[in-house]
Amino acid sequence: MRRAFSRRLDKVSRSPLVAVDGLIQTLSEGPVSKLHQGKTYFEPCARPRPWLREEFGLGAEDHAPPSGAPMLRRALSSHMSRRWGQDVPVDQVIVTNGATHAISSVLHAVLEEGDEVLILSPQWLFAHGLVRAAGGVAREVPVFLELSDDPAYDFVSPLQAAVGPRTRAVYFNNPNNPTGFRLDREQLARLVAFAEQHDLWLIADHAYENYDFSDEGYLDVALLPGAAERTFSVHTFSKTYAMPGLRTGYLVTPPGLGDLLTKWGLYTLYSVATASQFTAYTALRTSQEELALRRKKAAEARDLTERLLTVPHTTVQGGLYTFLDLSGYGGTPQEFLHACIAAGVSLAPGEAFGEHCAGWARLCFTAVEPAELSTALDKINSVYASAYSGEAR
Amino acid sequence: MRRAFSRRLDKVSRSPLVAVDGLIQTLSEGPVSKLHQGKTYFEPCARPRPWLREEFGLGAEDHAPPSGAPMLRRALSSHMSRRWGQDVPVDQVIVTNGATHAISSVLHAVLEEGDEVLILSPQWLFAHGLVRAAGGVAREVPVFLELSDDPAYDFVSPLQAAVGPRTRAVYFNNPNNPTGFRLDREQLARLVAFAEQHDLWLIADHAYENYDFSDEGYLDVALLPGAAERTFSVHTFSKTYAMPGLRTGYLVTPPGLGDLLTKWGLYTLYSVATASQFTAYTALRTSQEELALRRKKAAEARDLTERLLTVPHTTVQGGLYTFLDLSGYGGTPQEFLHACIAAGVSLAPGEAFGEHCAGWARLCFTAVEPAELSTALDKINSVYASAYSGEAR
Repeated sequence: MRRAFSRRLDKVSRSPLVAVDGLIQTLSEGPVSKLHQGKTYFEPCARPRPWLREEFGLGAEDHAPPSGAPMLRRALSSHMSRRWGQDVPVDQVIVTNGATHAISSVLHAVLEEGDEVLILSPQWLFAHGLVRAAGGVAREVPVFLELSDDPAYDFVSPLQAAVGPRTRAVYFNNPNNPTGFRLDREQLARLVAFAEQHDLWLIADHAYENYDFSDEGYLDVALLPGAAERTFSVHTFSKTYAMPGLRTGYLVTPPGLGDLLTKWGLYTLYSVATASQFTAYTALRTSQEELALRRKKAAEARDLTERLLTVPHTTVQGGLYTFLDLSGYGGTPQEFLHACIAAGVSLAPGEAFGEHCAGWARLCFTAVEPAELSTALDKINSVYASAYSGEAR
Repeated sequence: MRRAFSRRLDKVSRSPLVAVDGLIQTLSEGPVSKLHQGKTYFEPCARPRPWLREEFGLGAEDHAPPSGAPMLRRALSSHMSRRWGQDVPVDQVIVTNGATHAISSVLHAVLEEGDEVLILSPQWLFAHGLVRAAGGVAREVPVFLELSDDPAYDFVSPLQAAVGPRTRAVYFNNPNNPTGFRLDREQLARLVAFAEQHDLWLIADHAYENYDFSDEGYLDVALLPGAAERTFSVHTFSKTYAMPGLRTGYLVTPPGLGDLLTKWGLYTLYSVATASQFTAYTALRTSQEELALRRKKAAEARDLTERLLTVPHTTVQGGLYTFLDLSGYGGTPQEFLHACIAAGVSLAPGEAFGEHCAGWARLCFTAVEPAELSTALDKINSVYASAYSGEAR
């Protein structure tokens, strides 16, 4: 049979969240608060609109260069230079089709078939599939639940145990989706030392950079001594600017690697839609005050969850999620999720976020407005409590 | 050294057209008619605009499913069903980030490292790199210049000579970029028989489907007996609707393969920008009369070129290009291209379109309006003529 298929795609599955949408159709009779989705209820920071070519150097009908529209790249270079307090040259800034494409581009640029990537786990639900689609082998290293329990946990030891001759890179997101744990400066420094010791790439996913609730705030591993040359810093407009439909993000590459990453973009999708790039360009003018207000609203939703939720869950230092520990529930995790949907709330199944997370569930506290969140938390609490009395079984 | 790079990317180069842009900066003093670009001077059929969620089922800020926005997929299914005169199910229609991403998706879905793809040559300038980036080996099979000379040319014989145990697919675009040759029904039937004999996939690139100047018009190989099960039919809004900046195209897959292709999209870019999909949805309402008018304008530009151009070139049956034979020029092809730029016209170097095409150059006759095209053709004729008298050397 010549008409074969790539084995890479056999190893990846459809989105596990699509299955939740299916369950909602089957199990619920009324409206459902969809806390399984990763999103914010905030208004988008910019909307598509017509523009004059002079505003952006390109009309909507003109395709942009594979590395991104020059005016957007320059604006991102300035933006990141301000944030980092040091020059971020334009040629290290590559516009991508969201964070997904940014991470996929890096993986394809650095992996050979069978090379390994260490994933700090639990992790963003598509990280595994991105590595596999790029021909790599994903090795989950559970660290975030352990760190949530004990911030002094020696998370480098399991990394040392997992590293092998084919290991090429470490992927992590910080603050972490789904646990809400945030690696601080000291922890990041230990991660950099580990990467230096084994000469690994670092793929740092900053999707939740605006929702870092620590006093220090957004901290990029690339800024730590010795890290810049090995760090691909991933950013997206999806969460910070509440525009996931824009499908626009960007990479800051190590020095000298912008052209390499551009080649991958060229030979997979040519370039990102020009209208998306223009909308990103206008969103980038959002004031720091407005972004801080959104961070405050997210923190309030986090606080509301902390106050109301009786199911054991992780402490949230950043991001838009808490991870629920279902080990004390009187039924299986699947029974819990189904009962929640029947009660009008959907959560994401834990196993989507790590092989060791089947006993957990992810809750996004910014997916709906606070009033709806309160009601949803009550419903979750009731489902959790009712299992003890056998009512829900 | 652990921080290695994928060998796949070593095998691909930056866009050869970027080099032409560089030459324009260096060699020209005045304005240059950029006939090296593949584009139309036509107005885009739709422009980005705000919309109400009800109009499309999704707001601009909502991300679409990886296979495409449901309303766009349904509209494309209806559109293709009308064109093909038979049902094209929605689940075989996958929205992609332009034709580049469509072709890349198919290649990644069907190739293993080292598998071979036969490319009917000369070919679209990125076809080679797309195959390499997907881990494949591209085997160019020169056929279009031979067919241009003699439509009865037995183009299947060189394909039979090139097929091997690792051959998985045949890529071709029809009408052909850069020669303007159009494979007719009888020739496509021979191609299908060849693909059936060796059980190969057919990747049929229809970027120029609206610019088929034959009496029969757009003809999709998928419609020929036995072809549907092995044909990926590639379409884009870039040329038909004059919107390359939209980065939106679509695939019609063989029955049952939509989900497979969706997985590749999911794990490379998640989905196409929602605003692009909405703009595509509105562009799809462009009347057949308007599309026919654009075809007529392109045919007029083709006729103008045929009438004025004294450099030997291919006869154009479709598409937006003619391929110039520089073998009779008194200098090297590079000298010709440089002299043209100095005179104010840029052409694309032939080698970008095939290993055997170094003695050729591509001209896009719709890149500028007819008056500018006339002047540009005069300049090209002068450069070509002057070499004979030694003036330009």
